[in-house]
Order: sequence, then C-alpha cells, then structure tokens
Amino acid sequence: MAWLDGRPAAGLAVDDRGLAYGDGLFETIKISQGQPHLLSRHMARLGEGCRRLAIPCDEALLTTEIRAFAKALGAGVCKLILTRGSGLRGYRFPEPCRPSRLLIGAALPQYPEAHAAQGVALFPCVTRLAEQPLLAGLKHLNRLEQVLARAEWDDSRFAEGLMRDYSGRVIEGVFSNLLLVRKQRLVTPDLSRCGVAGVMRAEILFLAERAGLACVVTDVDLDDLYQAEEVFLCNSLYGIWPVVALEAHRWSVGPLTRKLQGLLANQTGIP
Amino acid sequence: MAWLDGRPAAGLAVDDRGLAYGDGLFETIKISQGQPHLLSRHMARLGEGCRRLAIPCDEALLTTEIRAFAKALGAGVCKLILTRGSGLRGYRFPEPCRPSRLLIGAALPQYPEAHAAQGVALFPCVTRLAEQPLLAGLKHLNRLEQVLARAEWDDSRFAEGLMRDYSGRVIEGVFSNLLLVRKQRLVTPDLSRCGVAGVMRAEILFLAERAGLACVVTDVDLDDLYQAEEVFLCNSLYGIWPVVALEAHRWSVGPLTRKLQGLLANQTGIP
Repeated sequence: MAWLDGRPAAGLAVDDRGLAYGDGLFETIKISQGQPHLLSRHMARLGEGCRRLAIPCDEALLTTEIRAFAKALGAGVCKLILTRGSGLRGYRFPEPCRPSRLLIGAALPQYPEAHAAQGVALFPCVTRLAEQPLLAGLKHLNRLEQVLARAEWDDSRFAEGLMRDYSGRVIEGVFSNLLLVRKQRLVTPDLSRCGVAGVMRAEILFLAERAGLACVVTDVDLDDLYQAEEVFLCNSLYGIWPVVALEAHRWSVGPLTRKLQGLLANQTGIP
Repeated sequence: MAWLDGRPAAGLAVDDRGLAYGDGLFETIKISQGQPHLLSRHMARLGEGCRRLAIPCDEALLTTEIRAFAKALGAGVCKLILTRGSGLRGYRFPEPCRPSRLLIGAALPQYPEAHAAQGVALFPCVTRLAEQPLLAGLKHLNRLEQVLARAEWDDSRFAEGLMRDYSGRVIEGVFSNLLLVRKQRLVTPDLSRCGVAGVMRAEILFLAERAGLACVVTDVDLDDLYQAEEVFLCNSLYGIWPVVALEAHRWSVGPLTRKLQGLLANQTGIP
C-alpha cells in the first residue's frame, strides 16, 4: 500500500530529487487500531528537518493524509518520505519546488519478545559516523553510513550495533537511540554533530522528566557506557530494549529501564 | 527519456533503497554523436563504488545498455543511477539483492561560453564537507551537503562554489573538481576523507602526465590556493573552467590551463 501526494501509486518519478540526491526526509510511524503513534513528535521532527533543509511542507495536509492512511492500513508501519520533488538540473533547488509526499505501508517488523524482556547484545560497529552539524539530528534520506554499519554483522545474537563518531564518542544504535542510567540520572548522547534524534528518545526523556528523573543530554564515551548502571536502546517501533552485553562487558536489566518500559506501556502512544 | 533495467520506464518502485537511503551510485555521462564520453572512466569509478558499497553490478550488461541509450539519445547527458534495488526491511541488505539500473536522458546544461573562455568567480561556501573516508571519492546518492552548498548563492556572477572540509582544507567545487598550478606542477586535493573523485579530474591528470607535467595529489589549504599561479575547475560535462576570482583574490587564466583545455579539445572524449 502506497500513496503519492494523497493518491495510490506504485512508483515515484525517476527525476525525483529524493532518489537523485537523498534530498528529503523520512519518518517511520507505528500504526495500531488505525491510529498513528506519537504523530505530533514525528511531525515536529519533520518540521524541524523541513526548516533546516528549506523544504516547503504543508504540515496540516500531511497530517490529514497520515491519519487517513493509518485508518486504511489499520496496523503496521507507515513510512513517510518527503522529498524536495522533481528536478534534475543539478544540485540547485528547483523553482517552483513541489515536494513529493510518499506514504508506504508495511507490516510491523517481527522482533523476538526476548529483546524487550531479557535484553540484547550490541555489535561493536567499525563504521563511524561523520560529524556534520548541518545534518545532525535529522532523519534525512542520506543513510549510507547506517547501511554500511548494518552490513557488518549477520549474526542474530546481535540485535543492534553500536555506532560511534570519528572522535570516539558513543552516539547511537544503527536504527535506535541509546540511553544510559548513571547515579540515578538518565543520560543520552548529544546529537548536535551526528546521529538521528529519535521520536521515542524524545518521548522517553519527556516521560522520565515527568516522573521526576533527572535527564542529561551530553557527550558520552565508551568509559561512560561501561560505567553505566543500566543501558538501553529505543525506537518508535519496538519501544525499549535493555542492553545486556557489548564485547566482554555485561549489564543487568535495571529498575529504571523497567520503570520506563512500564511508563511507555501505560501510554496509549497515540497522542 | 528513461530506461529502468533496460526498458523504458517513467517511475521507480516506491520501495527502492536508492530513494529510502540514498543506497546507490550515479554517473553523469556526456553523450554526443550517439556516443558516451569517457565511458571507461565512468565505469571504473562506478565499479569501485560497487566494490566499496558491496552492490553487485553486471558491468558488461550496464555498458551495453549505456551504449544503446547513447545511440537512442544522440546528444545530451545520460544520468546513470545504480541502486541496491527494492527492500524496505530496514538498513540490512536485501537478500537476494537485485540492483536497479536507471538511465535518464537530458539536454546538456547550457553554460555561458565565457566560463571556459574568460574564467569564473567562485562563491565561498559556508557549508563544509564532513570527513567520511568510507564514502570519500565515490559518486554516491547521499548528496545533501552539495544541495545545501548550492543553495547558498543565487547570484549568476558565481558559476561555482568552493567547498572545504571541517578542518579547513580546500576540497572541490559543488559540482566540479578543483586543480591548481604551482611551480609548474599540477596539484589537486586529496579526496581520501571527502569529495568526489571526478572522471574529468582523472582524465586531466592522465593527459597532464602524458604531456610531461608533474602531478601531485595532496592536501590543499586556502594559502596554497591563493599562492597558486593558475586555478581551474573541471567536470565531465563542461570540461575545464579557469578560476579568476575568489573573494578579494584574482588569478589570470594561465598557460597550463589553456594547454589542458587544448589537450581536452583534441581528445575525441570517446574512448
């Protein structure tokens, strides 16, 4: 199931800049009972990306389309791709610029229940993230670093991979954000140089602060990670996975991780 | 005019990874008299990209298709986009992987003749290139940095923009490579951390060495650029443009730039 600019479509024009340059943004939205989860957070991040990349976006129209798509899909994932539209006369913005709005439906990925219950092992990716503040935080379509990182392991014992930047900082998972608990504080890497600022990360920081937990966004190195009392991953489709192993290091699934899983489960997830 | 996997097509599947992740490569090939220019150099760079990104590619089939496309197009530009093909189950490579081969025909861009004859002024781009050795040199589909850089100026007095990396090194133009002449040597920036290794750059280095000129690929900073006797840009569509101005600095169009323009003009360009 796919809609292009509000209508069913199987393909995108070959001269779309989303294909040519990765000139666009995406969101991966969980759908259940015909409703999109965390839609206002997805739209906020998309809007921020549109402002920083100067892509015009009718957010009200897009929101209406996503709600209608979710109703039609029922359950699964709605992948939204917003591109700058057609135009092949080089890198320069097309005038006029008519963005393409693509919604693609898919089934929810089937992850083992043990990932959330007993935790996962992280693969230590060799692929490093380049530091590019102009694009950091955005969920844009330039994702070759993630493609290369995900290709590093094929062993199902590793549910995710850990990505660092070229300075050695711990940044995120390949398709997840990373958080840790240290001295009763929730800590997550600063994403102003690289990384994707996930909507589930934002939701967890919101829930944690509302529950009275101190939250810190700062640089994190491997020592910080190894000294953490609890470590977990999150994304908008699976919620929270505790991390229990990275190379020779082991963590237990901790009480704050369990508490945040509980808070998330109590949310309808549908604002 | 567009062909997908050897057949006329107007669109690409919405689940193609070229769109979703920029998971692919491209080449911009000049066509005249029904023949592709510098095809062996384009195929060599594409092959290198395929090896580094682990995209399987039937180079013989692709070469045959490009030659047939060039014959049908007659004159203009053949934009080749090779993606990893369909697959939306996350960043992981699809199995089996069936790359998409897209050929798109267009007219040659119409640049003023004065650019090659009298030289151009460079816009000093604020957008910096991130250092990512894993992708450096490749003409991959992750091109948001170039999109942002090209959006910095709208003044037709600037034909191109100068891009530096975050360490301040001079790397390239937004859609060109950069070369300079210093003490009778041809110098061009090292592209092992970022930048696109252009086929025209390779052709010019080849022609220059064959003509007995010493060629050096090394790091270049702004001082090197300002102290150069000659500076020029190149790409596979327009050949060579002398650079005559960057901010307050002025260069003359020099004898080696003219000599290389002459050598290029004497090449048929069709190996």
